Amino acid sequence: MAVITILGAGMMGSAFCVPLVDRGHEVRLVGTHLDDEIVKSLQSDSFHPKMKLELPRSIKAFYCAELEEAAAGADVIGLGVSSAGIQWATAQVAKLARPGLPIVMITKGLELVDGSLSVLPDIVKRGMPLPFRESIFPAAIAGPCIAGELARRVPTSVVVTGRDEPTLLRLQELLSGSYYHVFPCKDVLGAEVCAALKNAYAMGVALGAGLHEKNGGLPGSIAMHNWESAVFAQSIREMMRVISLLGGDPLTAAGLPGVGDLDVTMNGGRTGRFGRFLGLGLGVAESVARMEGATLECLEILSVMRSAISMYEAREMLRHDELPLLRRLIAIALDDAPVEMPFDAFFRP
Amino acid sequence: MAVITILGAGMMGSAFCVPLVDRGHEVRLVGTHLDDEIVKSLQSDSFHPKMKLELPRSIKAFYCAELEEAAAGADVIGLGVSSAGIQWATAQVAKLARPGLPIVMITKGLELVDGSLSVLPDIVKRGMPLPFRESIFPAAIAGPCIAGELARRVPTSVVVTGRDEPTLLRLQELLSGSYYHVFPCKDVLGAEVCAALKNAYAMGVALGAGLHEKNGGLPGSIAMHNWESAVFAQSIREMMRVISLLGGDPLTAAGLPGVGDLDVTMNGGRTGRFGRFLGLGLGVAESVARMEGATLECLEILSVMRSAISMYEAREMLRHDELPLLRRLIAIALDDAPVEMPFDAFFRP
Repeated sequence: MAVITILGAGMMGSAFCVPLVDRGHEVRLVGTHLDDEIVKSLQSDSFHPKMKLELPRSIKAFYCAELEEAAAGADVIGLGVSSAGIQWATAQVAKLARPGLPIVMITKGLELVDGSLSVLPDIVKRGMPLPFRESIFPAAIAGPCIAGELARRVPTSVVVTGRDEPTLLRLQELLSGSYYHVFPCKDVLGAEVCAALKNAYAMGVALGAGLHEKNGGLPGSIAMHNWESAVFAQSIREMMRVISLLGGDPLTAAGLPGVGDLDVTMNGGRTGRFGRFLGLGLGVAESVARMEGATLECLEILSVMRSAISMYEAREMLRHDELPLLRRLIAIALDDAPVEMPFDAFFRP
Repeated sequence: MAVITILGAGMMGSAFCVPLVDRGHEVRLVGTHLDDEIVKSLQSDSFHPKMKLELPRSIKAFYCAELEEAAAGADVIGLGVSSAGIQWATAQVAKLARPGLPIVMITKGLELVDGSLSVLPDIVKRGMPLPFRESIFPAAIAGPCIAGELARRVPTSVVVTGRDEPTLLRLQELLSGSYYHVFPCKDVLGAEVCAALKNAYAMGVALGAGLHEKNGGLPGSIAMHNWESAVFAQSIREMMRVISLLGGDPLTAAGLPGVGDLDVTMNGGRTGRFGRFLGLGLGVAESVARMEGATLECLEILSVMRSAISMYEAREMLRHDELPLLRRLIAIALDDAPVEMPFDAFFRP
């Protein structure tokens, strides 16, 4: 049995606690300053108001101000904040850090740091105090996982990825359970590129449902599935290209973090709904308005990738005819370009 | 403009004619002896009774006995029969063959020939008359294509695959149109392995919907999508393994023929319904009975793969712990084994 402290009591951070308490660990869930209502509810009757679900009573909920107490003696620190909160969360963890502290991140994303795309585990590492920074190897979870399903104990398979193999094997051993299957993956660049880009590409696939509806079609086995599946296949090819650009292993996109996570994200909710609105031809402003303030990771990553593409092109690391789908998605979702696909530019050798 | 004669007036053979007439070709669609009712209907008012759709009137329909007339002066022969009819169709085409005749197959499958898995284009080639067999390079179409969508001109992207590059480029030029995007693929082994296996794996993914329903769940964004997407990801890995076993390029599984076609097949109909019945726990006999005589390609390919796995194991080309998902699907769909997934055996390096 281990003590595991998770920072971030949103959907994914909270769902992550369920397999861990079922595995016999002592699990302490700490809300951010945005999670006070959730913590209050969990402390009162273990009901998670966002997930609309009662969590196991053995999960101990803490307010943000109680982080230090909640992290005392923790064997593992988990980060379950949104990607926008990663700088804040890194600063919190830095105060708790000790040599060799295992950190596991559920937060996903890619950021431009000093002119290069960086993955979040590397960004967190750079935020750790210098004396023992080199002994800390933040790891991340990637792969197909809808939080509400994990919290209901639906069998779920993910990878734990990072730059230090002993850390990965230790985390695999600690996190795996009867319905939570955790596989080590050494290609942290590949896994995190997939985790971040899948939101953009899932939006792209979802455009098809909107287009079909706009043309007067009904849901069913005859719709625009040929269109959607071609976009899906091109998405995987482009994930491979971005991974190789950053020096990762393109094959990672053919596994749980790429194919698996893109597939599940299409069933997910937010991203799919937003893509459908765009496909319906509502335009960016109206589509965003209809999402009623929901976080749209797809827009965040498309914006990062727009800058990244310019940079890598300027350095002649990327040709103008590469990533035609991603460029189109940037045009559609950031610049209100028409919802059309340049299929003849796809699937080049 | 070319003359293209297609043998087989079922759903896929007939749908394939639509982009070709739209492209300006003279298209002659020849029914097999099982298609007399379809031909009669097409000749009378261009209505396809199986697709429940009016086809373009410029498609000329012929009865089986009129094949020779329909093939006179044809620039390309297409094969759109079911995989069970491939021997018969090969014999028919052999009578029409001439040096360098381009043959394009919509029929898909893997067969055991002389102790090895063979792809259909190679089987058709072996059936051509000896004098000019070496000058004929049958090609095949693979990738995500629901027939009823192609016939309705939904944008569709496929590969044309075969062993002779000039033939592929000629076919790409002839077949591509404004909504039918055809990409050449030299890896005929990889593309055809994907085309055949996707039916088995799509059945596997569809088990999840049945399991969910059996547990009292409703369709929606919280279901067993984590389970399904992990099975999807493992399917692609196993396609890669089978491709490498036969000497093809594993990366083909990450493109249109693998990822794309597996994704579209989940929306397809037959295979998904059958998998759902098995997931519901109805057992093989009852599940087959409920399909009311529909062709179940998944059972055909699982049966072929059961023999193939034994053979390749005996030759020590395959280990006992490889292809755990395919083995499980064989056990479930052929031997009535319980619907459970050995997730911990998946995703091995």
